[in-house]
Amino acid sequence: MEQQQPAFGWAARDSSGVLSPFNFTRRSNGDEDVTLKVLYCGICHTDLGIIKNEYGNAMYPVVPGHEIVGIVTEVGSKIQKFKIGDKVGVGFLISSCTSCDSCKQDFENYCPKIVPTSNGIYHDGGLTYGGFSNLLVANERFVVRLPDNLPLEKVAPLLCAGVTVYTPMKYSGLNEPGKHLGVVGLGGLGHVAVKFGKAHGMKVTVISTSSSKEKEAIEQLGADAFIVSRNPEQMKAAMSTMDGIIDTVSASHLVMPLIYLLKPHGKLIMLGVVVKPLEVPVYSLIQAGRTISGSCVGGMKDTQEMLDFAGQHNVTADVEVIGMDYVNTAMERLAKGDVRYRFVVDVANTMATTA
Amino acid sequence: MEQQQPAFGWAARDSSGVLSPFNFTRRSNGDEDVTLKVLYCGICHTDLGIIKNEYGNAMYPVVPGHEIVGIVTEVGSKIQKFKIGDKVGVGFLISSCTSCDSCKQDFENYCPKIVPTSNGIYHDGGLTYGGFSNLLVANERFVVRLPDNLPLEKVAPLLCAGVTVYTPMKYSGLNEPGKHLGVVGLGGLGHVAVKFGKAHGMKVTVISTSSSKEKEAIEQLGADAFIVSRNPEQMKAAMSTMDGIIDTVSASHLVMPLIYLLKPHGKLIMLGVVVKPLEVPVYSLIQAGRTISGSCVGGMKDTQEMLDFAGQHNVTADVEVIGMDYVNTAMERLAKGDVRYRFVVDVANTMATTA
Repeated sequence: MEQQQPAFGWAARDSSGVLSPFNFTRRSNGDEDVTLKVLYCGICHTDLGIIKNEYGNAMYPVVPGHEIVGIVTEVGSKIQKFKIGDKVGVGFLISSCTSCDSCKQDFENYCPKIVPTSNGIYHDGGLTYGGFSNLLVANERFVVRLPDNLPLEKVAPLLCAGVTVYTPMKYSGLNEPGKHLGVVGLGGLGHVAVKFGKAHGMKVTVISTSSSKEKEAIEQLGADAFIVSRNPEQMKAAMSTMDGIIDTVSASHLVMPLIYLLKPHGKLIMLGVVVKPLEVPVYSLIQAGRTISGSCVGGMKDTQEMLDFAGQHNVTADVEVIGMDYVNTAMERLAKGDVRYRFVVDVANTMATTA
Repeated sequence: MEQQQPAFGWAARDSSGVLSPFNFTRRSNGDEDVTLKVLYCGICHTDLGIIKNEYGNAMYPVVPGHEIVGIVTEVGSKIQKFKIGDKVGVGFLISSCTSCDSCKQDFENYCPKIVPTSNGIYHDGGLTYGGFSNLLVANERFVVRLPDNLPLEKVAPLLCAGVTVYTPMKYSGLNEPGKHLGVVGLGGLGHVAVKFGKAHGMKVTVISTSSSKEKEAIEQLGADAFIVSRNPEQMKAAMSTMDGIIDTVSASHLVMPLIYLLKPHGKLIMLGVVVKPLEVPVYSLIQAGRTISGSCVGGMKDTQEMLDFAGQHNVTADVEVIGMDYVNTAMERLAKGDVRYRFVVDVANTMATTA
């Protein structure tokens, strides 16, 4: 049996989702491992869904958190990429098989044996516990280097939200100056999509059900235009104008009006896990060679590339930093969409190290 | 007013779809035009739908036919690409604006002002009449050169069915040796998709609702495998094995089982105009970065490329050649799927030149 080390965090014990202090153990640092002291951890919508068992896959106790930034405190004997004191991050995935076609192509995110950083089952059979904890041990492949020039608390959400929007933009050619990007839903993912779109030199239009976020989309986030999807005239005027759309909305919604905003060969990228099946009129795709795709986070190579790009272009998330004792309130507010745009827990400064 | 020349063909006069002899005129050959004597014309499912006004857009009299091969009989003063006696083809589109983004990128098929070869409205305001006629006049951009080594009657269906499957295969990377292609529906489009897949060096699996076509798929068309979509064990065994699927079925059908046959980043390409909206579970796309797209014929550059490739690799359609006086019976048989795999009318040898 592997050596263990004591760890401390906050966990949900049942589908109430209420988080409270939790003592547990993590494996000791192995030859190819990096141990980090957690500094900040973002709160993703998925965390909320998991602790309340909305996906039916919760394995309690659940220590959430997969937007993790920290400082390296220990490195294994085989580690050359990192040293003690480095600023590093861990995102949605903490391991994969490393030998399948997807892993070989640096798409560990599509490995059939992917191990999520939180609420997963590790190779040793134990549960994985996320970033709402004082320390984390990870194989170096799943650890990324952070840009030096960005505030860590604003970088944390890039580890999931950032790579989730950056990756499909890259593979759909939605990273080229002059192209026109639509962003549906201005939350944790959407606001970062706007920023990456602008950093790539694109025209960015936010599409929302109401005009309530128009001012902030344009003035704070730098969007070029704003369309209210319930305004038929605005939607009609924008028909066939967009090269691609990043749709971040998880609530059930019609995609047909979005499809018609796309130019020929335009791409609609669905990132929100909408439970109800989409209704897609085939003709809307055929008539202009359009595409609908889904995408889930990103591989480790793309995660590193995204962080390097963010550093070069000053892309960070807009965050509300909270203490760990506020986390249950934050989850309630997140459920209502009441955050601009991501909660980040100041783990190191606000969490005790034992229950 | 432009000069006119007499022409003769077969037309449907109303939504009965019954075709009968029809005298009409075509414009005289202009400076940038090519006139061809029609030799053969394939019958596409779209022809059937149009003459019966199933799409609600029939403009009678309708002279169908957009899989046209013939011999050049006249060339305009500015034509350098073709000369009298050349074997040429005309497909689904006879004109486009030539100045929009799609046209500039050689995707005339997605030009918003596309003029179909049959049942369209030409720039001069007149109706376009298709290939069930003795001659055709077309701007040279919309005329393609045929391979010398292939029988013309077997080439005719490539002008629509061929380019319809070749083009999305090309743009989805489904033209690389060793990749695995699924083909749903073994009709006019599907059987050509199998042949192009094999010509590209791919593994090709036909997916069908019954095993009735298994023998011919493998022995005659060269498919590597055959899956009955109603056989859960066969479908399960094939899960996550295909790089892409060409779905040629126009009847309403479930796409979810097809999506799960795709590998990560796999692409489902819909070619049949299914009237009922598809039901697409978003998670099936997200979990593996999968894509659903539509595609409509192809641009002129890709049509020429497809024909050149067909010539090099001996790809032709399997056809049943008929006389023009059999065409109404052929349409009835086509409606029942009773053809292996494409009717082609021997226009030159079986049609009178006046009513």
